[in-house]
Parts: sequence; C-alpha cells; structure tokens
Amino acid sequence: MQLVSFQEIASRYKAIFFDSYGVLKNSKGIIPGISQTFAFLKEHQIEYYLLTNDASRSPEQLAANYHSYGIKEITEDRIISSGMLALDFLDQKVTGGTVAYLGTEGSAHYVEMKGMKTVPVRDIDLDRAEDVNALVFLDDEGFDWSVDLTHAVNLLRKQNMPVIVANTDYTYPVGKSDVAIAVGSLAYMIEKIVGKKFIRFGKPDTQIFQFAFEHIQMHGPIERKDILMVGDTLKTDILGGNKFGIDTCLVLTGNTLASKASLKIESSGIIPDFVSESVVG
Amino acid sequence: MQLVSFQEIASRYKAIFFDSYGVLKNSKGIIPGISQTFAFLKEHQIEYYLLTNDASRSPEQLAANYHSYGIKEITEDRIISSGMLALDFLDQKVTGGTVAYLGTEGSAHYVEMKGMKTVPVRDIDLDRAEDVNALVFLDDEGFDWSVDLTHAVNLLRKQNMPVIVANTDYTYPVGKSDVAIAVGSLAYMIEKIVGKKFIRFGKPDTQIFQFAFEHIQMHGPIERKDILMVGDTLKTDILGGNKFGIDTCLVLTGNTLASKASLKIESSGIIPDFVSESVVG
Amino acid sequence: MQLVSFQEIASRYKAIFFDSYGVLKNSKGIIPGISQTFAFLKEHQIEYYLLTNDASRSPEQLAANYHSYGIKEITEDRIISSGMLALDFLDQKVTGGTVAYLGTEGSAHYVEMKGMKTVPVRDIDLDRAEDVNALVFLDDEGFDWSVDLTHAVNLLRKQNMPVIVANTDYTYPVGKSDVAIAVGSLAYMIEKIVGKKFIRFGKPDTQIFQFAFEHIQMHGPIERKDILMVGDTLKTDILGGNKFGIDTCLVLTGNTLASKASLKIESSGIIPDFVSESVVG
Amino acid sequence: MQLVSFQEIASRYKAIFFDSYGVLKNSKGIIPGISQTFAFLKEHQIEYYLLTNDASRSPEQLAANYHSYGIKEITEDRIISSGMLALDFLDQKVTGGTVAYLGTEGSAHYVEMKGMKTVPVRDIDLDRAEDVNALVFLDDEGFDWSVDLTHAVNLLRKQNMPVIVANTDYTYPVGKSDVAIAVGSLAYMIEKIVGKKFIRFGKPDTQIFQFAFEHIQMHGPIERKDILMVGDTLKTDILGGNKFGIDTCLVLTGNTLASKASLKIESSGIIPDFVSESVVG
Repeated sequence: MQLVSFQEIASRYKAIFFDSYGVLKNSKGIIPGISQTFAFLKEHQIEYYLLTNDASRSPEQLAANYHSYGIKEITEDRIISSGMLALDFLDQKVTGGTVAYLGTEGSAHYVEMKGMKTVPVRDIDLDRAEDVNALVFLDDEGFDWSVDLTHAVNLLRKQNMPVIVANTDYTYPVGKSDVAIAVGSLAYMIEKIVGKKFIRFGKPDTQIFQFAFEHIQMHGPIERKDILMVGDTLKTDILGGNKFGIDTCLVLTGNTLASKASLKIESSGIIPDFVSESVVG
Repeated sequence: MQLVSFQEIASRYKAIFFDSYGVLKNSKGIIPGISQTFAFLKEHQIEYYLLTNDASRSPEQLAANYHSYGIKEITEDRIISSGMLALDFLDQKVTGGTVAYLGTEGSAHYVEMKGMKTVPVRDIDLDRAEDVNALVFLDDEGFDWSVDLTHAVNLLRKQNMPVIVANTDYTYPVGKSDVAIAVGSLAYMIEKIVGKKFIRFGKPDTQIFQFAFEHIQMHGPIERKDILMVGDTLKTDILGGNKFGIDTCLVLTGNTLASKASLKIESSGIIPDFVSESVVG
Repeated sequence: MQLVSFQEIASRYKAIFFDSYGVLKNSKGIIPGISQTFAFLKEHQIEYYLLTNDASRSPEQLAANYHSYGIKEITEDRIISSGMLALDFLDQKVTGGTVAYLGTEGSAHYVEMKGMKTVPVRDIDLDRAEDVNALVFLDDEGFDWSVDLTHAVNLLRKQNMPVIVANTDYTYPVGKSDVAIAVGSLAYMIEKIVGKKFIRFGKPDTQIFQFAFEHIQMHGPIERKDILMVGDTLKTDILGGNKFGIDTCLVLTGNTLASKASLKIESSGIIPDFVSESVVG
Repeated sequence: MQLVSFQEIASRYKAIFFDSYGVLKNSKGIIPGISQTFAFLKEHQIEYYLLTNDASRSPEQLAANYHSYGIKEITEDRIISSGMLALDFLDQKVTGGTVAYLGTEGSAHYVEMKGMKTVPVRDIDLDRAEDVNALVFLDDEGFDWSVDLTHAVNLLRKQNMPVIVANTDYTYPVGKSDVAIAVGSLAYMIEKIVGKKFIRFGKPDTQIFQFAFEHIQMHGPIERKDILMVGDTLKTDILGGNKFGIDTCLVLTGNTLASKASLKIESSGIIPDFVSESVVG
C-alpha cells in the first residue's frame, strides 16, 4: 500500500465528495491545516460536497457546526445527508397521516418543516394507530430505548407500515477512543425482531452519491470519472463510491488506522483507488 | 395437520419435557385444567421437566411462581433454565476475577451464590478493567439500555473476554397481545456491533436438552426415544427437540396460533411429530 | 387488499417501469392480451421501460426474444438490465488487465464488446493471476459449478480484486412450477466463503431505477411522482421502487400468488401502492 | 500470546479431544513426530478421541487412512464424526420411507448400513416424492452440483421434510495452499434459497463434544474439567470446546497461522485457554 499526497491526486478531479467525521474533523477537533485544503480546492476550481450519514440535524445545523470552528467553506448547500434522503422518501411516498419517530424533537422538527405531522413513538396509542403511516428512525437520542423501542415493536406487530432508517451507521465516535451506539444499530435489532424489511438510507447505498451527483451538475456538467470520493471508512465511503463508479481515496485520520489499513483492505475486499494520510498535504 | 389428544400421545412416553410459557401458562394465566394433566402424568408414572429460556430468576424462584398459582407439582429440581447452563459455563471456564453483567441485581445474585464476584457493566472503569474476565447478558431489566449497552460495547472494544448470553429469546409476551424485547435481542445487536462471537445458551441449542436428559436419569434409566418435548414455538422447542433426537409435540396455546400452525410448519421446514390443541385433554 | 384495474391506475402516470418475467410473460408464455396494454400506453402517450435482473444476454438479445413472440413494442433501447449496470461499473472502474468471469461465452462476449479482455475463471493460472483485475458473476450456465466455483474461491484467496455480481436474483422460474438456481445464489455462497464484500447490481438496489430514470428523460422531462413501477416480486420490484420514491403496483401473474399476496405484504412489510391482477385490463 | 509446550499442558488432563486435519495431519502429511505424542499419552494414561466434521466416510474408513500412514493408535472406536451424529438423528427421527442424499455412493452406503433406504436426489421423481422422508447433505462429491442442487431446491419447494447437514464446514484444504468447497457451503446456499431451517451437525455445536464425552465414560468416570480440546480452528474446535465447558488448546499447524493467531483471537473474541505450536513437543 503506497501513500499518495492528497493534493496531488485531488488536482486530477473536477469535484471531491468528502465524508465528514474522520476526514475533515475527528476526536481531536478539526483536522489541522484543513483551510489550506479548501484554499487549494478554490485555487484549482475543484467543487466539493459533504456526504454524511446523519439524520439528527438539518444541513443548516451541520454547516453551523463547521462555521463555529471557523470553516466557512462548508455551506448548507454543500451538505448531503442520509436524513435528507429519508425526508425526500417521506415526501414522495407518505402522504397524509402521521409519521411516528424515534429521535430528538429537533430531528423531528426538521421533518415537520416539510409539512408532515410527526409524533414520538411512545405517544402513540396502539389501539388507535390507524393514522400512523410510517415509522422513522432519526436519532439514538431523545427517547428511552427500553420503553420506546418496545413500543415500536408492538406498533409494527399491529400495523403494517413502511419503516425508514435515516442513518445506517452502527456506531459513531465519542471522545478520543470510545463509540456510541448509532440509530442504525437500533433499527437493525428491531428489523430482526419483527422480521420485516426496513428502508435504509445512507452510504454505502449509492442513492446518496446520486443525490450529490445531481446537485453538483448545477455548477456545470460533470461526469463520474471527474469525481473523487474521500472517506475514512471502507465499508461505507469506499464501497459506496466504488459501486457508484467514481474513484475513491481512503484517508487515515479516522476509522481506519494506518497500521491496519492494508489488512482491512485485504480482508474486506474493498479496494480504494488511493490511500492518503489525510486531506491535508 | 391433524390434531391429536395430548394424553393419548403422552401415554406412549416415559418422560415429558415441557416448555413453560405458552404451554403451562400464557397471557391468561395458568392453562385451565392443568392439574388434570399432572394427575394423569402421576397416574401413568410419567416423569417431567420444565425447559425454559430464562436467566432472570433462579429455578427456586421460577418454581415459587408456579406454586403461587397452586401448581405444586413443578418443583425447583424439575426446572432446567438457560440461566443454569450459563452459570455452569461460568463455573467451568471463568475462574477468578470479576464477571460483568447486564441484568437485575437479583439475576446477578444467583451468579454470586456460585461464588463468583459480579459487577454491573455500568460500574466498570474502562481504564481499569483488567480483572473483568467475562461479560454476561442475564436480563433485559435492571439497567439503562442506552448507557449500559454503550458501556458494554466500549468494554469489549478495549478488552477481549468471553461474552455469555444466558437467554437467546428475542422477545417475551407481556399482557394479552404485546411483547417485550428480551435480552437475546440486545445481545444480538451488541454482537453485530463488536463483530465478535458470543456464547449463547438456551433452546433450540441441544445443550439444554442434554442437561435435562442427564438429570432425568436419576429417576431411572431412560432413552431418547422415550421422551417427548412439548412446546409452543417451532424454532426453539420443536427445532431443538428434533435435533436432540426426541419426539416433539407442538401445542397451540402460545406463540403458534391454530390458524397459522400449518403455514408456519410449511414455511419454516420445522416439523413436529404431533400437534395438540393444548396439554389438557 | 383491493384489486384495481391496471389501465385505470396506469392512466395517472407519464411512464411505467415494467419488470419482465412474471409481468409481461410467465411460464405459460406471453401474458395474453398484452398487445392491448401496449396499445393503451401508446394511445395515452405513456412511456415505458423494462427493468430486469439479467446479465446473461445483451438488451439486443432480450428484445429479440420479445420480438419472436410478436411483441415489437419492446425495443433494445427500452431495456435496462442489471448486466448493463455491471458493465458500466467495469467500464468506469476496471481499466486494463483481464476480467475473470463465471457465465457463458455469450455473456462474456457482451463484456468484450466494451473493449475489455475476458477469460473464464477456470482458465486462470492461480500462480500467474497478477493481471486479473476483477471477477464478475454473469450467468449460472456455461461452466462446471464444482470446478469453476472452487477455482474462484482460490483465486480470491490469493489475490484481492473487486467482485461484481451482475444479477442478484437467487432463482429464476423454469417450466410451470420449477425454479433454477440463479447466479446471485452462487455469488452469495462464494461471498460467505471468502468473507469479502461483493458489489451487486440489480433490483431492489435503486441504481437500476436511477439508470432508467435518466434514460427516460430523453423523451422529455419527467418527475419521480409521474412514474409507476410494476412488478410481481415484493422484495425486488416493489421494495426497490418504493425506496426510489416512485409509486409501485404489484401484479399477480408471477412470483406472488393471489392467494398469498396479503400475507406476504403483511409479513414482509413491503407495501405496494396498488395491486392489480395483471397488466392486462 | 504465550506459547506453551503441548506435553506440559496435556499432562494435566485425563483425556484429550483432537481435531483431525490441521492437528494430527496437514497438507504436508502426518505431523512429524506424532508417534512420540501418542507414546506420551499412553505413558501418562491419557485417553484420547478424534472429533471431526466429516460425513463422507465411516469411522472405519477414517481410521484406515491413519493406519496407512503408520498411525495405529487411532482406531475406529476413537473417532467421533459429524456424520455419526447425522446418522444417529436419522435413526431416531426418520422411520421408514426413503432418505434422499447429496454425496457419493460410499457416503450413502454408510447410511444404508443402518437399515435406511437411500436414493440420490437426482433420481427422485418430483411428482412422486411422497415417500421421501428426509434430505441429507453428506459430501460435496458424487453428484453434479448444477443438476442435483437445483433438483434439491425443487424437491424442498414441493414437499416439507427435515433437511440434515452432516458436515457444517464451509471449506476443506487440498494441497499446500488451496481449499475445496465443502458440503456445508452448498447446504448453506440451499437453505438461503428455500428459506427453511436445516438441522446441522458438527463442531462448534456441542452435540459432538457431548457424544465424545459419553463415549469416554466407558474408560472410567471423567469430568469435563479433566478434558482438553485441541484444534487448529477457532470458530469450530475452540468455540465449541469452550461452550461445552472444557479447556481448549489452539495449535498452529493448520488453519490458524502463527503470525495471525493473536489477531484472530482478538477479532473473533474466541479465546483458547492455551496456544501450542503443535501437538508434538
């Protein structure tokens, strides 16, 4: 495995898709020197988007977080989240009625902004659930796992409805070395219990890449061969990018440690086109 | 699918293994007329055992529950639980150190009686966990799922240890039509997250049948062909009994509704030797 | 479950995506009266595409098969197959070297037309496989399963490369009531054995819907809400259509029997927007 | 990971359970010096058994193979195979009728010796299959995978019957570095296709350990704490031995390379009590 300079390979593309956590920031905060990277992209007129598995906050809030660190280049319109896809699905396919959710009030507020009526799963009366038209997993916070997940199981046993998982990740990092259980894990458990098929949004599924691909056309026509996906996780960022047919670059600032990258590539069979130490340099 | 009288087929065997919930009791309480069944067994000198996926209480407590309903025939020594097998494993394979657990204090107390030191997962300092020699899933109650399950994930990321699941069931019934999420589901999610192999105890695994088989020899020599397993669940009671090489009888007082029994047998490929309406009559 | 007339609902859309087998033809041949359906579509200026999980033949050959039955309306340019997506992937991501394949010579010929060098898996010398840049599962025919699948396992143990599954179906119908094992099943087994992650193309993945969606824009701008997916299989056609955000219609002329449709919808949680007896009437 | 001398730890036990391939022999033939090991066991009056996932040959044939290498200590009565368990199941649970099989004539002959009527799957007329009472996967050889596996799928679609997998291994070694696909993989694929639950025999399931445990009592009473399982594969030999409650020793002469042992133990969470270079020394 040969490490290449990020700028050297980035310069061959017209657009970059970045994963967020593990690539632009990590447990130590914003990756030092990241502003050089954005200056480089600007100088070479390379477009960029953030593709993130997150449904807990709106793109506006996600961008505000970067701004608070002084990174002004990441604007709301450059963020594509799995939550946006889930919202798009609800918008297209679930008309009228109520959407039951697992997550914070904030995550539900974002759904309500689209004109849908939401209600926390725990507030649903199982004997009067006829107007509940969908269940959506938004966030791992904002509810009592024991009470609300059990209620969700019984809701799905009584009434058939589409179930949407707005973030397929199993865990997310907290602090220097720990992880938290993400809503994707909870959805996975409930899917196994009820034996039904849930609808999942987020990398490695190609839909989020397609969404970004369509958005980027607004800056002028661009082909898939002109785009590079940059991520720290083989089984989401790299697998998804590969499948979508764009080039992929693994960085070693997040999930995949430098010491284990070769081994993980070999054992998973997920092969990035390039490996860089970080997006800086 | 032809229904047969339970007593008619029971009379052909020297011993009966009963599942507990769904067979001897269900959401409506003790199956009416069950004392006739025990009188019949006594009259025909047919031995019996209870085989139950439960690690939340000791056999003593499980028996006491039946006694409170007036069923004196189910004594502590006739109960084989998955919790007993898990305890047996800990006893054989984990010597010294501390056993971390997820469950109620009561379930842990039962482990402590065997001379092992236990500590709730949440109380373990992840930076000083060297003396933790095993993690055991005992019960779905007694802890905060969000906090304690996350702590369990981080414990297993930092230290390699055997993980024991003392009850493999995914759900258990509560009230007339609802279910609760059992500890087996929680363990399943954590196993998926950490990517390690857990050690599971309980039906359909044949170990619990073997355990009962050895115990029953105390009442005189008995062969597998002389034993009938009676249960309400195809994928635990019937599958396990079949694999252990004993005859199996499905009853329709629990998990498997009369209207869906044929369909479930067909779609699962798990075929009981007999189907009876209930263990009474 | 209420059955609706296909023409009645079709008239509300600007375009129809049809599955092929089980919808337009089945074990008895072409669905009788299908020419009326195409006449209806023409009269109402409704566009249509075929979306099929098939990598054994080129769109040209697939169209020729319909023509041989007198169905001239299904032209090469209206067929989107999972094989086309796989080919597109190879074209984008695998440059130079050799593509090893499992399938007939005909299926490989279609890959060769794109300028790639192909070689049957069995002909690869495992000690000199450096120039093999990808392995692709094209068809269940054209090779000795025992010999060639074993050779594929050993190739993947020795060299890391992307593995492409050009048809994810597990079985396909042959004759009135039998099925054959499709290449998707074989790929599934090999993936399990080698423990690597394969790249799969075909419904229910949304990529094939996206591909058709882009093609159909050539006939004038069209939105997702103006498209109806029609299929006979819940877990491919309907699940994929739902996830892509278009309306879906289940027909009862193929995989899903009229007598079991309600049950399958309930147990799978995959809910079509409409159910019609067939695409005729 | 600290390596210990096999003889040093073996001397603490009254009995040893050995895996066969990778422990007593491997691709280079019989492990050199193995006769010293058997002399050591004899000298210290340590009993031993072979526990092997194999259903292609009878214990008599398996023993004869060792004899041909000059190892006379491995006699027929000291071999416990997964095939014996499968046969035992058929004997207990399948009475009368015909047993359909996938495997060589030789493997079926072994079943016939128990008085059961067998017929190769391919010879079954699907329209007259009423007397077929079970399907058993015996060996990966002796049939055409494409023809016979497809026939097996259609048999199981038409008639409900217990399906027995007499060897759960996914692969077995051939030559210095290659593997062959074992019958366990084929069964796994068919189980996935038909969606039914098969009955599997072999390590890591504890039933084979129990079988050996019962046999060894004939040489005098022995407890589980007096037995050591020695194997080269974590997920079969070591996982199964651990679960059965006996001590386990990993050897590095087969599946688990010395350079990767620590990593595999860490990533799988399957922890042997000891690790030895080989059973010699």
